Amino acid sequence: MILLMKRRCPEHGVDRVVRHLKEMGADHRVLENSGHTVIEVLGDAESLDRTWLEREPVVDRLIDEAEPILAADRQPGDCTREILLGDSATIGGTGIGVVAGPCSVETLSRLLEVAAAVKEAGAVGLRGGAFKPRTSPYSFQGLGERGLEMLAMAGEETGLAIVTEVMCSGDVELVASYADVLQVGSRNMHCTNLLAAVGRQSKPVLLKRGWSATLEEFIMAAEYVMKEGNPNVILCERGIRTHEEYVRNTLALAVVPEVKRRSRLPIIVDPSHGTGHRHLVAPMSRAAIACGADGLLIEVHIAPERAWCDAGQSLSPEQFRGLMAGLDPIAEACGRQLHPARVTEAV
Amino acid sequence: MILLMKRRCPEHGVDRVVRHLKEMGADHRVLENSGHTVIEVLGDAESLDRTWLEREPVVDRLIDEAEPILAADRQPGDCTREILLGDSATIGGTGIGVVAGPCSVETLSRLLEVAAAVKEAGAVGLRGGAFKPRTSPYSFQGLGERGLEMLAMAGEETGLAIVTEVMCSGDVELVASYADVLQVGSRNMHCTNLLAAVGRQSKPVLLKRGWSATLEEFIMAAEYVMKEGNPNVILCERGIRTHEEYVRNTLALAVVPEVKRRSRLPIIVDPSHGTGHRHLVAPMSRAAIACGADGLLIEVHIAPERAWCDAGQSLSPEQFRGLMAGLDPIAEACGRQLHPARVTEAV
Amino acid sequence: MILLMKRRCPEHGVDRVVRHLKEMGADHRVLENSGHTVIEVLGDAESLDRTWLEREPVVDRLIDEAEPILAADRQPGDCTREILLGDSATIGGTGIGVVAGPCSVETLSRLLEVAAAVKEAGAVGLRGGAFKPRTSPYSFQGLGERGLEMLAMAGEETGLAIVTEVMCSGDVELVASYADVLQVGSRNMHCTNLLAAVGRQSKPVLLKRGWSATLEEFIMAAEYVMKEGNPNVILCERGIRTHEEYVRNTLALAVVPEVKRRSRLPIIVDPSHGTGHRHLVAPMSRAAIACGADGLLIEVHIAPERAWCDAGQSLSPEQFRGLMAGLDPIAEACGRQLHPARVTEAV
Amino acid sequence: MILLMKRRCPEHGVDRVVRHLKEMGADHRVLENSGHTVIEVLGDAESLDRTWLEREPVVDRLIDEAEPILAADRQPGDCTREILLGDSATIGGTGIGVVAGPCSVETLSRLLEVAAAVKEAGAVGLRGGAFKPRTSPYSFQGLGERGLEMLAMAGEETGLAIVTEVMCSGDVELVASYADVLQVGSRNMHCTNLLAAVGRQSKPVLLKRGWSATLEEFIMAAEYVMKEGNPNVILCERGIRTHEEYVRNTLALAVVPEVKRRSRLPIIVDPSHGTGHRHLVAPMSRAAIACGADGLLIEVHIAPERAWCDAGQSLSPEQFRGLMAGLDPIAEACGRQLHPARVTEAV
Repeated sequence: MILLMKRRCPEHGVDRVVRHLKEMGADHRVLENSGHTVIEVLGDAESLDRTWLEREPVVDRLIDEAEPILAADRQPGDCTREILLGDSATIGGTGIGVVAGPCSVETLSRLLEVAAAVKEAGAVGLRGGAFKPRTSPYSFQGLGERGLEMLAMAGEETGLAIVTEVMCSGDVELVASYADVLQVGSRNMHCTNLLAAVGRQSKPVLLKRGWSATLEEFIMAAEYVMKEGNPNVILCERGIRTHEEYVRNTLALAVVPEVKRRSRLPIIVDPSHGTGHRHLVAPMSRAAIACGADGLLIEVHIAPERAWCDAGQSLSPEQFRGLMAGLDPIAEACGRQLHPARVTEAV
Repeated sequence: MILLMKRRCPEHGVDRVVRHLKEMGADHRVLENSGHTVIEVLGDAESLDRTWLEREPVVDRLIDEAEPILAADRQPGDCTREILLGDSATIGGTGIGVVAGPCSVETLSRLLEVAAAVKEAGAVGLRGGAFKPRTSPYSFQGLGERGLEMLAMAGEETGLAIVTEVMCSGDVELVASYADVLQVGSRNMHCTNLLAAVGRQSKPVLLKRGWSATLEEFIMAAEYVMKEGNPNVILCERGIRTHEEYVRNTLALAVVPEVKRRSRLPIIVDPSHGTGHRHLVAPMSRAAIACGADGLLIEVHIAPERAWCDAGQSLSPEQFRGLMAGLDPIAEACGRQLHPARVTEAV
Repeated sequence: MILLMKRRCPEHGVDRVVRHLKEMGADHRVLENSGHTVIEVLGDAESLDRTWLEREPVVDRLIDEAEPILAADRQPGDCTREILLGDSATIGGTGIGVVAGPCSVETLSRLLEVAAAVKEAGAVGLRGGAFKPRTSPYSFQGLGERGLEMLAMAGEETGLAIVTEVMCSGDVELVASYADVLQVGSRNMHCTNLLAAVGRQSKPVLLKRGWSATLEEFIMAAEYVMKEGNPNVILCERGIRTHEEYVRNTLALAVVPEVKRRSRLPIIVDPSHGTGHRHLVAPMSRAAIACGADGLLIEVHIAPERAWCDAGQSLSPEQFRGLMAGLDPIAEACGRQLHPARVTEAV
Repeated sequence: MILLMKRRCPEHGVDRVVRHLKEMGADHRVLENSGHTVIEVLGDAESLDRTWLEREPVVDRLIDEAEPILAADRQPGDCTREILLGDSATIGGTGIGVVAGPCSVETLSRLLEVAAAVKEAGAVGLRGGAFKPRTSPYSFQGLGERGLEMLAMAGEETGLAIVTEVMCSGDVELVASYADVLQVGSRNMHCTNLLAAVGRQSKPVLLKRGWSATLEEFIMAAEYVMKEGNPNVILCERGIRTHEEYVRNTLALAVVPEVKRRSRLPIIVDPSHGTGHRHLVAPMSRAAIACGADGLLIEVHIAPERAWCDAGQSLSPEQFRGLMAGLDPIAEACGRQLHPARVTEAV
């Protein structure tokens, strides 16, 4: 059980509660949490006198099992938080933001070519891995800092916001010095050290759902980031691991409207990893927008059949243009616009 | 391995192949299958001389593992099969057909009331269980034939096509005498006897995907029906069982575009069972249409909080009207119309 | 909510409760259930006066969600029910019973040969499918009644109890006229009609867990059988469908001790389907016995590489002999004997 | 595709292959891997002339998809690697090693008490978390270095090997300075940085399977560790996430014999997390040993109902003694001894 103390609760109030817990023989722990004092009662709390605690004026709330406070704060009528990517584009407003690019950064020329293509088709961000989490230690692990440099160049040239993965807390500063948005991958959603580290810097965080994480764990991972002071978390559904065999993952889209009900955080969808097959990317992108997603993360490669990884799920620039064209009417049917960046340009 | 013989293959041709298999020491079995002769080679077929078999003029095709023939026949450019429900409505054309109604038939007055309401909101069919598969033998199992009678009355009064579940082969004739479409439920998707039985009658079959069936098994279940002579199978995705806890099932929508690629059968989506929560039904309905579904199956109850089963996922008539209104622009964005029945009436 | 009335509750007592429910405006339904009268309250029962109902002398118990009554009746100290298979062998006592044989009945000579072999190695029952549930309608579906005849012959010749699957309620009488134990397969665990049908005849039922059934659903399926009057249900864990790829199914052995805690029904394990690989059958058989299983169901084929189905998981007679020899010390370590039948013979 | 070059392949041989790849237009990358040179061909390798590569004398082997080399090297007849924990105990020989202790280190007195108790019951190692991965940032995250100090004291006093989790690469040196075995938890199995970091130090690594990792990913995670030079990896099955609801995880024991077939690494089982329920720990421990596990990892707490986490799955010292007593005969039935440490003492 957690006792959330009232804001600006005086120290002697905390002391009184602590004394009471000691008298009851309850192990406990006091911690400060962004202005709130929180007292955690350790072990079985069943023997405690809840009435006493509930009536105690300095106690704001008893929380039976730890639950998210910052990441699940949506009240009916609230808007989704609008998060700035780089200089101009946003995710979370009425516009729908699409981030596209190759699985991994391969060469500068290929990257510039694909960046120009996705920009022209309406993307607001460029994705691309410089640090790649791979199942095998013998597979290509990314170009590292050289890859980050290339991404920054592509960002400068096109104005696209740069979204790239950071895999361990030691690299956060490095990646943040090049990228506009730090991605935490599906494999690392449970790495609390990494979550805290990206929470201690100021760039927005793109947090992918672990492929077998529950919704509670997903939201709690965002809470780890936000608790450190960074409120700008973009959630991303990328498919879960199930018994299905014809897809790489099962894209579990109901998470989109459910997140909208619980949280003010924006949520986008990655239909590339979420299906693993090129021909499923466009229809699932339409479905994602139709159920309320704030954006998409899509793999695009200049020559998909030559991609160093994830070849089967990458779109060619032409296929990506087709996808974007098909999204326009769906976005409009949902009362939204597809690519606010283009609108700005049109002015 | 299966040897699909050519149509109108003469008997002496079959005999020649059989003789050859005997000489090779291969266990086998000859069967007739809607005009085709099929020879199944039992056990390990690796020692066989494939070249001999492939060159044999009466052999049309060698099929290494049993695969669907009738249910997975789509060629690029093919249209989805348009299936007539009752007298006028169809599923599978450019129109999108919505079937709605209560989980189970409870009383005639409630049924007539809800039927009128869903008809007015644009549904083309009325769903309602007279035979209910329930986890507990002590739970309400449906009204049986009395429920079928009520459904038929509601169909007559409203012109809606009646869709209702049949749970065992012994009931097929009875249910078919009242209903316009026979539903095979998720729990029974693997019951090959039931599949064959609904395949031997002429009314369309609504086949729900087993909650842990692979796509291959789903399509193969349709093949069981079609093999008996009934080509009118409407597939229905209704969610799969995964580790997710906040939903009753995980709605796995990628199956919609994948079925469209492999099969000419129409596919609809049941977002009521597919999520288990009222507030997720409308957004997931939009997502289903956006990725290509040919229709929806939705639980609507006059007074959801009083429903005898599935109360948490049933919409009120008013909520259903809202859902239908929200679908119109999505359907249009996909180049389709929502409720062709209304169009006809408007003439 | 279900009201379980006291045994021998007088009719006027039932009437009194019904009248009360009517006054409260609660939809309900009265049913007889093996001597008990049960009143089901339909829909939301929250507005009801529970105190009145609990105090009512003819009401035995209020059951909030339907739960098993007959199949989950174990009290601490209770023994597992010992069920007679055929004339002499039992499952559920201190002895451990192994049922072995081919996936499907193929020819009489092969069947007699394998029957003799498994008998000699210590099996108490012979398994073999005459009706086979197959994913494809073009795969071998079993020999039907001819297969049943062969099984009966093999049973007569060896004294082994015959265990074979029945796939639809219409075949129950036929299969029961040949077999000693009726098996309900994993695909059909949810077919309530079939469960009720095998519950209305007197031979023991071997009930396999559905590959994605929860434990509650599994026990409830046994309840469907027992409610009709047949208490002799042998449960069988055969693996569940998960994301694991190197096995055909994930053998979920914890179900064995959990069933022992909740139910007096015996439970056996099928490591052949539960793993799908020959080399895993023996170690998982040992594990099953070590955690308390009352027996095993194992696929054995005279020449596994020629088996008409499930070739990869079938043992040869010699491998089966090895498995049985390895089980003896494990059974003893658990205070049990492996094959009581042999002990009896030795007298 | 990966080209594994022969050991001591001369540089001009590598150059020749690289030149050939360039001529074929194949993107590639050369890397050194513990003495081997490895050339990775990036992207689609289908157009390559495999025959040329296979005949090339400096190429040892073509590996189509990246596969484990060091962690999956078992040949028939090979023994499991015996790994020394601390000074005397081993895991992987004929003896079976049990590591027990509390979920998290709470106070020194409780830790010393439980350490003495598990030692006396036959454990060879003491587990206890100083860094705890928790779903919520508001839950107790462990005592950190203070907890490590307490563990070291308990180890000194009892002679038990200390097993404790390390959660990020930055803490590896610290944890290794106190512990005898470094545990990588289920949540972190995919964190390749952490895997590499524990691979660069010399203490044995206890690697828990990710709760939704495939077997291939599990073995590949061990490969990440071994590739850095640390061959002493102890694998640990701790249950996977499935649709099952009555257990915290589904203990998937078939992984034990399968690992034995593929790898020389020892594998132990954690039935505490693998079931989540105290009453299932003992039966599943027996099952684990019966199918070949080299040891167990078990949660024991002086007063389970007061445990700061995982209360429901912790055993009391008395329950743990009972469990150990019940394992003896099973171990013997498998031709092994339960606690070699005791044997040594008995001399």
